[in-house]
Amino acid sequence: MTDKLNHFDGNGNAIMVDVTDKDITERQAIAIGKIYVNEETYKRIVDGSVKKGDVLGVARVAGIMGTKKTSDLIPMCHPLMLTNSKVDFELDEEEKSITAICIVKLSGKTGVEMEALMGVNIALLTIYDMCKSMDKSMVISDIHLVKKTGGKSGDFLFHSRK
Amino acid sequence: MTDKLNHFDGNGNAIMVDVTDKDITERQAIAIGKIYVNEETYKRIVDGSVKKGDVLGVARVAGIMGTKKTSDLIPMCHPLMLTNSKVDFELDEEEKSITAICIVKLSGKTGVEMEALMGVNIALLTIYDMCKSMDKSMVISDIHLVKKTGGKSGDFLFHSRK
Amino acid sequence: MTDKLNHFDGNGNAIMVDVTDKDITERQAIAIGKIYVNEETYKRIVDGSVKKGDVLGVARVAGIMGTKKTSDLIPMCHPLMLTNSKVDFELDEEEKSITAICIVKLSGKTGVEMEALMGVNIALLTIYDMCKSMDKSMVISDIHLVKKTGGKSGDFLFHSRK
Amino acid sequence: MTDKLNHFDGNGNAIMVDVTDKDITERQAIAIGKIYVNEETYKRIVDGSVKKGDVLGVARVAGIMGTKKTSDLIPMCHPLMLTNSKVDFELDEEEKSITAICIVKLSGKTGVEMEALMGVNIALLTIYDMCKSMDKSMVISDIHLVKKTGGKSGDFLFHSRK
Amino acid sequence: MTDKLNHFDGNGNAIMVDVTDKDITERQAIAIGKIYVNEETYKRIVDGSVKKGDVLGVARVAGIMGTKKTSDLIPMCHPLMLTNSKVDFELDEEEKSITAICIVKLSGKTGVEMEALMGVNIALLTIYDMCKSMDKSMVISDIHLVKKTGGKSGDFLFHSRK
Amino acid sequence: MTDKLNHFDGNGNAIMVDVTDKDITERQAIAIGKIYVNEETYKRIVDGSVKKGDVLGVARVAGIMGTKKTSDLIPMCHPLMLTNSKVDFELDEEEKSITAICIVKLSGKTGVEMEALMGVNIALLTIYDMCKSMDKSMVISDIHLVKKTGGKSGDFLFHSRK
Repeated sequence: MTDKLNHFDGNGNAIMVDVTDKDITERQAIAIGKIYVNEETYKRIVDGSVKKGDVLGVARVAGIMGTKKTSDLIPMCHPLMLTNSKVDFELDEEEKSITAICIVKLSGKTGVEMEALMGVNIALLTIYDMCKSMDKSMVISDIHLVKKTGGKSGDFLFHSRK
Repeated sequence: MTDKLNHFDGNGNAIMVDVTDKDITERQAIAIGKIYVNEETYKRIVDGSVKKGDVLGVARVAGIMGTKKTSDLIPMCHPLMLTNSKVDFELDEEEKSITAICIVKLSGKTGVEMEALMGVNIALLTIYDMCKSMDKSMVISDIHLVKKTGGKSGDFLFHSRK
Repeated sequence: MTDKLNHFDGNGNAIMVDVTDKDITERQAIAIGKIYVNEETYKRIVDGSVKKGDVLGVARVAGIMGTKKTSDLIPMCHPLMLTNSKVDFELDEEEKSITAICIVKLSGKTGVEMEALMGVNIALLTIYDMCKSMDKSMVISDIHLVKKTGGKSGDFLFHSRK
Repeated sequence: MTDKLNHFDGNGNAIMVDVTDKDITERQAIAIGKIYVNEETYKRIVDGSVKKGDVLGVARVAGIMGTKKTSDLIPMCHPLMLTNSKVDFELDEEEKSITAICIVKLSGKTGVEMEALMGVNIALLTIYDMCKSMDKSMVISDIHLVKKTGGKSGDFLFHSRK
Repeated sequence: MTDKLNHFDGNGNAIMVDVTDKDITERQAIAIGKIYVNEETYKRIVDGSVKKGDVLGVARVAGIMGTKKTSDLIPMCHPLMLTNSKVDFELDEEEKSITAICIVKLSGKTGVEMEALMGVNIALLTIYDMCKSMDKSMVISDIHLVKKTGGKSGDFLFHSRK
Repeated sequence: MTDKLNHFDGNGNAIMVDVTDKDITERQAIAIGKIYVNEETYKRIVDGSVKKGDVLGVARVAGIMGTKKTSDLIPMCHPLMLTNSKVDFELDEEEKSITAICIVKLSGKTGVEMEALMGVNIALLTIYDMCKSMDKSMVISDIHLVKKTGGKSGDFLFHSRK
């Protein structure tokens, strides 16, 4: 880790980081996040995923498409030719939450952390959108990078601060 | 609130909700969310907002632009002609967090909850992107709708479940 | 119907048709089209729609999202705030075809024929994409407007020429 | 050809196919499709292509631009840096049809079949859009891949089933 | 004209101007700009516009499509449903320049100055792109708003400062 | 330089230039352009850049994001994975102008001239947008390529014709 923000030049102006001279290596990033819903909504989502009204199926498609739009939305992100993108979900009956996991891969010059985080965000927002007629108090939380491999800065594994 | 997901038809197929016959009314939505950063990053962001290297200035622009892309990213969202969109930030020295607040307005046939939530998400993801060279363990949390006014379903005010 | 192309001005230059003075009316368009697949692929799609691997679920989402991108892709199309968009499918065991039907609604100044046709095209292309590892000889055919209501030019009902 | 849909994982969830380890090779795809118009419209299009009101000129630009938007529209398509894209037309006086041919090239890790098919679809839809004031009964048909070269799965040449 | 920048709030933070309460009125904006090319390029463009290789035809389509993307590119621009958009060109043999004129109309709550200026810019950039193999020293100049009608701030007519 | 427009095929039809066989080399392009504003606006922009209401900060972000959208706006531009993009400004008290300079880098098969020119245009248009409530007579001028390095066609340095 550097002790400065490399997204600013010497004058403090925002810039896209120069990766021209970086090597093309295999890179992967995994991000995670969850949405807390109420009981009825939780039941409804679980039912849909096994029969009609598949909320998670739509959220999965949205999340994958979202990873491809990252450089369009995050000002300083480089456009990247993602070689793999997937979104999966885990349901927690206990706390009535749905966890979204997004894995993105690239063979390129810079990492795909933002793409994985974007996939998680868009998937969770899509769940919110499709369930908001039942519940508007859903809360999206604990979105963070889980793991990152490849690239000069080396691998990263998330450790909670708390 | 209805007890069903209106984003699915009778056969359980995902649909965009039909708002053709809804009245055009003034609608507003406010959403909020925060990102937890480490001490160095927090100091760096605070410094930038007062002198060079304005992370929050870039995140604000990204968040506002993000609200305009909502229907492009969330499959069942209607395209809307937003009449107002703004993003603001609050810094919490105590917990080393930056809170993003997004307010979106529309004079139209459907609500702008998703647009406000999208603005918060994109603003927080942009902060993550611009600070990730210093810290990759930042966590985005507590994203939820705060308030919604206008429209047939009436006003909504968030009440935490906990 | 006029006897000239209103997408060109007096000098034959392409223009977006001026709809400034048109009334805002409720408009609807229905378009249809089909894709012919081989036997294995047909069986695979049918299975997926009832259990795992839902090709049509993904194609439905893509089709609906496609209707929202019409003005982005068709040079002279007006940007429109669609009030409803849905895509459905019919399977024909006999001819091994999947028919996509797209219905788009708008309360606005111009019709949504192109949006409905775009929804059909994107849904069928998505089926092609998701099945092309099994069969690259799929053929997309018979894409046409079925019906159009609303607007000064009056209603339209498709009559085959053959 | 495989006997399964590689756009779904073991659990039947839609995924973007992982092409991270694939070799970068020269790839090309050619797709074709046609639109049937009525006599007046056919004459009008032919006239325009030789003098004022060039419908095909606009459709060609739209088709080429469309090939670049494929990954934006087809959920599981990889973003690709197309190295060549062109759209051409053939007119059939006999059957009053315009055939669109799209050729796309890439030096990359995955094929460009979808890009070529997208170019054909957008070009034909643009013809429909620009002529619909004269004729709304136009039919788009026979869209299929003609040829594909490059990549591990080898070359493909279309053979009609009929 | 106000003496302050209404794109910033009281704290100097960038905002999208709130037009929620503005009336829907007919608005029009006309913008202009020119590109200076060398003699060979000028001749080539003139020839193309009368026979094969129509640079201006492509630039016209690009300019019109560009007007529709304004809110996507200019951070604080409102998304608008343009009701008319056209781009035209004037050739000046004397100074070897091509002038692009863009007219945009809207029945809405805010003006379309930026859309008209965007149309001019994209049209001129497209001319540059299509001619740069012959001449890379082309200069784009004198881009400005010509006229604006409609809206509370009243009409505007450009007066050169020089 | 060639004496023909390589953006048209033998029949004069617009095409995306085929760069499939070109080598991947490091490429860079620098473009420049300026906007002339009135005295009050000039003072306002200068003030903002040192304290509240940072017009140039927003324009910088817009310009960088604009470089990433080039292939989306310019019909025959190849989609490219930019490896670096930055926008800077110079203020001229004398003539009351702001000059935007955009530098874009790529390790790829074709040049980034259009991306650099796009960054300049979008940055200047954003300045116009944010200041137009004070002054609508601003003029954007002298936009041109300054320098280009890398690629078979060799380096280019701008020489004014006048």
